[in-house]
Amino acid sequence: MSEKKIPYKIYLEEQEMPTAWYNLRADMKNKPAPLLNPGTHQPMTAEELGGVFCEELVKQELDNDTAYFDIPEDIRNFYKMYRPSPLVRAYCLEEKLKTPAKIYYKFEGNNTSGSHKLNSAIAQAYYAKKQGLKGVTTETGAGQWGTALSMACSYLGLDCKVYMVKCSYEQKPFRREVMRTYGASVTPSPSMETEVGKKILAEHPGTTGSLGCAISEAVEKAVTNEGYRYVLGSVLNQVLLHQSVIGLETKTAFDKYDIKPDVIIGCAGGGSNLGGLIAPFMGEKLRGEADYRFIAVEPASCPSLTRGTYAYDFCDTGMVCPLAKMYTLGSDFIPSANHAGGLRYHGMSSILSQLYDDGLMEAVSVKQTDVFEAAEYFARVEGILPAPESSHAIRAAIDEAVKCRETGEAKTILFGLTGTGYFDMVAYEKFHDGQMDDYIPTDEDLAKYREMLPKID
Amino acid sequence: MSEKKIPYKIYLEEQEMPTAWYNLRADMKNKPAPLLNPGTHQPMTAEELGGVFCEELVKQELDNDTAYFDIPEDIRNFYKMYRPSPLVRAYCLEEKLKTPAKIYYKFEGNNTSGSHKLNSAIAQAYYAKKQGLKGVTTETGAGQWGTALSMACSYLGLDCKVYMVKCSYEQKPFRREVMRTYGASVTPSPSMETEVGKKILAEHPGTTGSLGCAISEAVEKAVTNEGYRYVLGSVLNQVLLHQSVIGLETKTAFDKYDIKPDVIIGCAGGGSNLGGLIAPFMGEKLRGEADYRFIAVEPASCPSLTRGTYAYDFCDTGMVCPLAKMYTLGSDFIPSANHAGGLRYHGMSSILSQLYDDGLMEAVSVKQTDVFEAAEYFARVEGILPAPESSHAIRAAIDEAVKCRETGEAKTILFGLTGTGYFDMVAYEKFHDGQMDDYIPTDEDLAKYREMLPKID
Repeated sequence: MSEKKIPYKIYLEEQEMPTAWYNLRADMKNKPAPLLNPGTHQPMTAEELGGVFCEELVKQELDNDTAYFDIPEDIRNFYKMYRPSPLVRAYCLEEKLKTPAKIYYKFEGNNTSGSHKLNSAIAQAYYAKKQGLKGVTTETGAGQWGTALSMACSYLGLDCKVYMVKCSYEQKPFRREVMRTYGASVTPSPSMETEVGKKILAEHPGTTGSLGCAISEAVEKAVTNEGYRYVLGSVLNQVLLHQSVIGLETKTAFDKYDIKPDVIIGCAGGGSNLGGLIAPFMGEKLRGEADYRFIAVEPASCPSLTRGTYAYDFCDTGMVCPLAKMYTLGSDFIPSANHAGGLRYHGMSSILSQLYDDGLMEAVSVKQTDVFEAAEYFARVEGILPAPESSHAIRAAIDEAVKCRETGEAKTILFGLTGTGYFDMVAYEKFHDGQMDDYIPTDEDLAKYREMLPKID
Repeated sequence: MSEKKIPYKIYLEEQEMPTAWYNLRADMKNKPAPLLNPGTHQPMTAEELGGVFCEELVKQELDNDTAYFDIPEDIRNFYKMYRPSPLVRAYCLEEKLKTPAKIYYKFEGNNTSGSHKLNSAIAQAYYAKKQGLKGVTTETGAGQWGTALSMACSYLGLDCKVYMVKCSYEQKPFRREVMRTYGASVTPSPSMETEVGKKILAEHPGTTGSLGCAISEAVEKAVTNEGYRYVLGSVLNQVLLHQSVIGLETKTAFDKYDIKPDVIIGCAGGGSNLGGLIAPFMGEKLRGEADYRFIAVEPASCPSLTRGTYAYDFCDTGMVCPLAKMYTLGSDFIPSANHAGGLRYHGMSSILSQLYDDGLMEAVSVKQTDVFEAAEYFARVEGILPAPESSHAIRAAIDEAVKCRETGEAKTILFGLTGTGYFDMVAYEKFHDGQMDDYIPTDEDLAKYREMLPKID
């Protein structure tokens, strides 16, 4: 098929949409390390996890062998309201960059949550509903995950309790208001509603909170309330499973036009978007059927893959969660308050950590002013105002395309555009006003937290 | 074709997208009344209009006979970045309402401007660029039009000067920041930058501005600066022409599935969205080929069609613009500050005014608390957080669907969902907090402004 015929946006037909999620772990030789009980340091059993997560989600979390999980019809119908998401050929960006590269992005921002988070939110809410639960609890930082979960719970008639990192709660009243529109209750974290919140407030009276702290509160709320479970928007195996819908749609769309990407780029905080985007492509690589370069892009201010340690660590500040083996900066690490670009989690998905450790994936870190420069450039050229998180991938994709201009290679570059930045205008304003700078933790900073990692084995 | 096969969203293929705009006026027996020179009360000539608008746009403005205008290739390529917009079957809404009605909406919010305004912004910017101009000036109220124009100008490398109604400028700093991201200069109106602004400020020192006042400033800036022209996001014939792309795509999508809507509903402020949505359907009605019900929905606080006068009036507060014959509340009418829902313009497109006066279209007005109730309901059921403006149409569509439930009629209802409400969370917050009430102007209020209408003929 001649290149001319590739449309600006490739949409799948409804009947081409995935009917099963793909479980990358089934094709991994080195499986991701299991979650450990923080008391015994033994692998968490299904029974133990069942106190925190829904039964079906526990199964998905622990299953390293089943390659495909059917997507229940109710979830597929919900997906139809905002999916398939478009796979966009960035013709305008290519022209502006004068690059021979062909650039594609999978755009997940065309839904009210503003990001890919809805893909897993509806799945987790569905299984909670199916189990007859009253509601779910969660944490949210920038607010994308909390919004997505609110939407899913509202749709299914589930109660939704969100602990929102206090500084975000105060800086992003509109995000909070969207969640309220969907009927969620939103509490700034740390709060006096939980024991762990009270303890953190007693130790750090002026704290503006962190993701790790909000996770602790949400987990406590779930395990101490009858009929509630905790849900999480990233990091976990189950989340990457649900997010495989991104990669599966992308691959189907590419296959229709006989396109094979050379490089696949995604931003990486906890890893949900990147893990979902690369899933079917990485599967081919693992099975030896095809080869691709994969690049995880993380902020220089929170560089878990590029400067972290591959070790067991706590997932939360209050240490109420299981231990996970991951590339981590230490569970007490919090990026500078100046950091505006999301992707603030101290650790990285166990699946992605293992793939990275096995040399199957690359990682780069980028400075936030470079990220916002790319964001603004992209907005003007491609018309979409990107989320700061997504803009990490834009930065790396532009850098790769510029390399192609220099070498003359007509590579095919795919990146994940995870969402829109409509609720991030304070960060854009800082950038425009020249009030944004680049905080990068020193080696000494990182060493301090590394020494605090739990000793396992 | 059985109903089961209709997907949740109908997307056209690129080759199915319209290649020409449809000019409804060509099929109108009673043509819309011409713009008049405010001094001589004679119809504005092309030459006179050429001082304010670009040449090509003047031609489009004055042409009541040519049925189709080719869409230039550059504009079609820009459209491909965010169009076709989806025609959505509201399966979830139908189920929730337990109505036999089939509800469809054409969703124009999947672009960074957040609304349909981009369809005309790129056209107007394109012709300005083609004419070799340096830039354009405009006004914006809620900010959708200003954002759209900023995006179009940024894409084409045109200077963009936006006068933003002062109260919006202060209440919506994020809208302003999006425009800045696209390189526009944004000035709160009234300002000291223009003579008319100075005059208004001298007469009303504490004023927070109005659309009519911002229009006056933008026009003055255009006509007093070499290489600039004024552009407008609604009301004008040319704008309705460009917006016909909405209706044309909708009709093509319906035709693919042999669907014929019974009722077509759109919100109406200046009329750009409604005029564009109904264009090809109204054309069929005018030519006697088919019949449809058309319903314009306006706010009870700014009821130009339902309670206004069909007369020549000023388009702006400073009276620097031509006179237009339209349903109007008087150019000094400003809806209550409590009114949150957009659609604040005192008059209505001359085309729609004529169609309404000829009995070809109905109009209803709705109260804003009813509008926000519908907005929240829709958000929860269909997943999209709608703009307050768009929610006027949602309200009316829900009301029609409920009537169908009562009568048992399986009518097909189409409405225009013009945009998203991500920058309107202050209004949603008011609604949630019970701080929103329903201002409706009294007959005495309206009579006062009616008496101030200019005497023409």
